[in-house]
Amino acid sequence: MINFEDALAIITQKIKDIRYPKQPARLYEPVAYLLALKGKKIRPALTLLACNLFKDEVQEALNMALAWEIFHNFTLMHDDVMDQADIRRGQPTVHKQWDENTAILSGDSMLILSYKYVGKTPSNHLKELLDLFSTTAAEICEGQEYDMQFENRLDVREEEYLNMIRLKTAVMLGACLKSGAVLGGADSKDGDLLYDFGINLGIAFQIQDDILDVYGDPSVFGKKQGGDILCNKKTWLLVSALNSADEKVKKELFRWLKTDDQPEKKIEAVTACYNKLMVKEKARNLMEDYYWKAVRALNEVSVPAEKKTVLLDLAKELLNRKS
Amino acid sequence: MINFEDALAIITQKIKDIRYPKQPARLYEPVAYLLALKGKKIRPALTLLACNLFKDEVQEALNMALAWEIFHNFTLMHDDVMDQADIRRGQPTVHKQWDENTAILSGDSMLILSYKYVGKTPSNHLKELLDLFSTTAAEICEGQEYDMQFENRLDVREEEYLNMIRLKTAVMLGACLKSGAVLGGADSKDGDLLYDFGINLGIAFQIQDDILDVYGDPSVFGKKQGGDILCNKKTWLLVSALNSADEKVKKELFRWLKTDDQPEKKIEAVTACYNKLMVKEKARNLMEDYYWKAVRALNEVSVPAEKKTVLLDLAKELLNRKS
Repeated sequence: MINFEDALAIITQKIKDIRYPKQPARLYEPVAYLLALKGKKIRPALTLLACNLFKDEVQEALNMALAWEIFHNFTLMHDDVMDQADIRRGQPTVHKQWDENTAILSGDSMLILSYKYVGKTPSNHLKELLDLFSTTAAEICEGQEYDMQFENRLDVREEEYLNMIRLKTAVMLGACLKSGAVLGGADSKDGDLLYDFGINLGIAFQIQDDILDVYGDPSVFGKKQGGDILCNKKTWLLVSALNSADEKVKKELFRWLKTDDQPEKKIEAVTACYNKLMVKEKARNLMEDYYWKAVRALNEVSVPAEKKTVLLDLAKELLNRKS
Repeated sequence: MINFEDALAIITQKIKDIRYPKQPARLYEPVAYLLALKGKKIRPALTLLACNLFKDEVQEALNMALAWEIFHNFTLMHDDVMDQADIRRGQPTVHKQWDENTAILSGDSMLILSYKYVGKTPSNHLKELLDLFSTTAAEICEGQEYDMQFENRLDVREEEYLNMIRLKTAVMLGACLKSGAVLGGADSKDGDLLYDFGINLGIAFQIQDDILDVYGDPSVFGKKQGGDILCNKKTWLLVSALNSADEKVKKELFRWLKTDDQPEKKIEAVTACYNKLMVKEKARNLMEDYYWKAVRALNEVSVPAEKKTVLLDLAKELLNRKS
């Protein structure tokens, strides 16, 4: 059995081993640049760990793991253009380091590269995993589209928000796990259970992310506290607050959403509204609901419990993180 | 046997039959919009016609044909953003009709959608055609990258230009034909010959395009004559002229390349340089070389000559077109 650190080490080496065409340099350098930045690499690790539940060695899942990681980084390259983000993992984003056209075209190459790795799947699983990959990839675009639409809406409902993060974040964790299971030789029931584990873990993870932005310890969290509040991001906290506030609190929230010139006061005032409405507690409860759904799905997977501790510990760690 | 018009009709119907997800509308409407615009649809037709050389019915090649057409339109959607083009097939480009973010994200969805259709390939050919599709797609991005780089260069060599159009235009024609042949049951030699036919036809086609921009009949050609000259596009004519001109003519060309405010004089003067250097004649000779290479490759394909007349006539028509 490999643990999470083993999986990371295998993936990191595999990324280092990628040989890009030398020319045109401007097309492939941004791909190498983004993949070399320090990322969490949770997604490809999930593929290897899921494979390892059913099979002693993870060799056959490596290309698929890499496909997911490359695809994930492609979404970052294009999302950063769309969101006009300047910094990614502490470094300039591709469209800042080069330019927008480079980020668009290198991103396209990166999406195609991810499919090249899907194409290395053993032929008995190729059709199934190609379909899973394409379906998931399309859903992730849908999630990004909803996320962008929500920027201009004040009437986002909680279930709309949950559907958006399911598409934008959770389906990929589910699909990473399921593809690993398939390559490990799991039956379809176990594959689906691991998919559910990933979906629920992903939603819990995103809600946790929303909580940490406001209530996390900034010295640990790395990001500035309240960043989401400052850019009026429709997090679960804000969506829930807008849906549960009475007219008075709603008016106050609307006023602060329009205020750009008093950042510290804005964070303080919006947080005070959240506190009044107990949205942190509601968010924590919801997050725990999803966490337990995830754990129940994992428990049902038909392999000995001790094999599952790696994934269970990873889930616990993700949701108890302070950053 | 089907002819070119039959192939177009089949493709057009297949495109009409695509059912897109209803939501998010803003993601899928641009895809439907672009695919519904009147395009030549040569690429998917080549796939069906190549299949038909080896097999009486083309049903099994339909999804692959559609994959190529969707992929081609994806490249148009993103290229138009990168080139800041306002009009495509007489209608506003997607980033003009909606906005840039929509064109980026809908384009991504379109690329993924093209792979969904590749995924419908019969399993005995899936691996081969998925690899062909990804390799070709990556090359097309490389071609677009070179094309963008050439905008800022005055020292493009003729072989660099030919390599660029091979990547940007020709490999796709080759791959469309080859994939159809594979699905028709051709052996690998015939598949490769049809690939060569497509490559050489594609290069000839692009050189013809460059000639028509300057020397075409504008009443037939549809586009304004000299459009490439006005935007300093590195066509084969300009590349060849810059490489064959003496210092005096070169100086004159450089001067006109920097001139933006006298469009009619610029077209006249640059055309005069071309005439002096006989680049039209050189271009026509080169185009014919590639045309005959294409014909020779097609001749070698091991099916009766009468079956090949559809493709041969299409090639003739493409290269004798006035528009």
